[in-house]
Amino acid sequence: MTALPRKVAVIGTGDIGCGWAALCAAAGWPVWVFDANARAVERAFTEVPRRARALAALQRATPGTVERGLLELQQGRSLLQAVQDADWVIEAIPEDVLAKQKLFEAIEQVAAPDALLSSSSSGLAPTEIFGRCRRLDRCLVTHPLHPPDLIPLVEVVPEGRTAAAAVQRATGYLRALGRTPIVLKKAVPGFVAGRIAAAVWRESIDLVLSGVIDVEDLDRAVSLGPALGWAAAGPHLTYHLAAGEGGVPVFLQRLLSTFEGWWGGLATWHKLDPEQQRALIQAIQKTYAERLEVLREARDRRLGAILKAVST
Amino acid sequence: MTALPRKVAVIGTGDIGCGWAALCAAAGWPVWVFDANARAVERAFTEVPRRARALAALQRATPGTVERGLLELQQGRSLLQAVQDADWVIEAIPEDVLAKQKLFEAIEQVAAPDALLSSSSSGLAPTEIFGRCRRLDRCLVTHPLHPPDLIPLVEVVPEGRTAAAAVQRATGYLRALGRTPIVLKKAVPGFVAGRIAAAVWRESIDLVLSGVIDVEDLDRAVSLGPALGWAAAGPHLTYHLAAGEGGVPVFLQRLLSTFEGWWGGLATWHKLDPEQQRALIQAIQKTYAERLEVLREARDRRLGAILKAVST
Repeated sequence: MTALPRKVAVIGTGDIGCGWAALCAAAGWPVWVFDANARAVERAFTEVPRRARALAALQRATPGTVERGLLELQQGRSLLQAVQDADWVIEAIPEDVLAKQKLFEAIEQVAAPDALLSSSSSGLAPTEIFGRCRRLDRCLVTHPLHPPDLIPLVEVVPEGRTAAAAVQRATGYLRALGRTPIVLKKAVPGFVAGRIAAAVWRESIDLVLSGVIDVEDLDRAVSLGPALGWAAAGPHLTYHLAAGEGGVPVFLQRLLSTFEGWWGGLATWHKLDPEQQRALIQAIQKTYAERLEVLREARDRRLGAILKAVST
Repeated sequence: MTALPRKVAVIGTGDIGCGWAALCAAAGWPVWVFDANARAVERAFTEVPRRARALAALQRATPGTVERGLLELQQGRSLLQAVQDADWVIEAIPEDVLAKQKLFEAIEQVAAPDALLSSSSSGLAPTEIFGRCRRLDRCLVTHPLHPPDLIPLVEVVPEGRTAAAAVQRATGYLRALGRTPIVLKKAVPGFVAGRIAAAVWRESIDLVLSGVIDVEDLDRAVSLGPALGWAAAGPHLTYHLAAGEGGVPVFLQRLLSTFEGWWGGLATWHKLDPEQQRALIQAIQKTYAERLEVLREARDRRLGAILKAVST
């Protein structure tokens, strides 16, 4: 069994960093946060407690443990102060490979020799992210989805030189946080979740911009259609179960040619020109005219209810 | 308000037809089923009651109404007997455009003049499906997902000549069955759900066959990752909420170039050669070695729990 961290450092306190800090605090772990932007740190001190307590309200954390963890939430006045003596250093800064390289170079200089270093990158190659580190055995990617405190999946992507023990330690920490770590066998751009999300989003944008469906109906169609099926079974199992007693061989026999026809006709563009961007932004903003905070609360309520359902 | 049908005819009693019949019976509507295959009809008389009663167990139907509906479940000895006097004729035969054309030609000759005729096609053009019909004003596609009695989405795809009143009547019937009808503004191959599912499945197959992840982890990653997010918010709203207070304009500013990179690298093949089919079948069967019935029950339980959560 993995020993639990006595101190976690979260570097970068945007949405992802706050999610990590909330998860760790809700588990009763002492968390030190650091961000070069003072306003982001200030926001974290309202956002992290809010999210950690929301986990307790969802019965995904114990109120007493949450409050104990929150008492130990601290701000590092410097990267050094946040990182030193931490067992786990979580990087959660924006997706900029050079910035991540420089940050990990600095972290390596101040981190304890046996600290685990992880990046929240959504799809950059670990070899690049840790390109300036000397010791790669304890470095890896732990990529959460948005919002990290609610969606259970965390993609674990080792670098070629990451030690097996570090992977095991990371998955142990993640399970202790109630996460579902999935270890990739090799790194590809976007990993697994990002590639699948990119495939869905491209087709979703294309269907709206080509006038087949509007934004609201597209979102409802996915939410109340395929997404429910995938949440219950995953894509491969879905089709294994979609041909009566025949399983996937019969499914392919009956429907592969249909899928092949569709595959040939899916959107293939990989640039969204400024005019298309404007049209997309306008369509989304027109559909979702409420304040983002209100929309986010409704989404989180719905997500919380679904999480309760899937964990039973 | 739409008057409810006094008789529904379901032609084709495979999985989709049984799902339609179960939904209608659970609503207390008299259903006549017809299938050229006698064994399929026989199976329907165990499968439809099982599924209709499962809807009651999920609190999605009233037990008394279900039993009343099941008492009126009947087998047409001929297409004529099933279809005559029906207010709604639902076609649910395999995805073969010529067979559907011929069937609708035959249905048109025996259906009541004001019957609504709908096809369950997952992506064929309505213009083709109803290519041999003379009266297109009452014809349209109502495409459910699998399993139709559980997933709420039904894509409604009118032909160019479908009357607005027929679309309204179809959506009325579907809402009375607890479905969420989404009317497409125009027909494209695969409609909306099929295209998005095809995009996901291609990438899911590619990630497995290229050794990034195995079948079980891919399914778990999607189930406990992006699918939960989409079930709670839909793709467009997901990204509108993923950039703090900035909404989708800030999301595009920060992450469009990342997505563009991923879009450029996604799978683009549209044929699965026999060797790849074998590899995929083998991987799926090895992962899901339990009996299909057991896997299906587990999926349906999970789906039922999620449905309860999203309808609250």
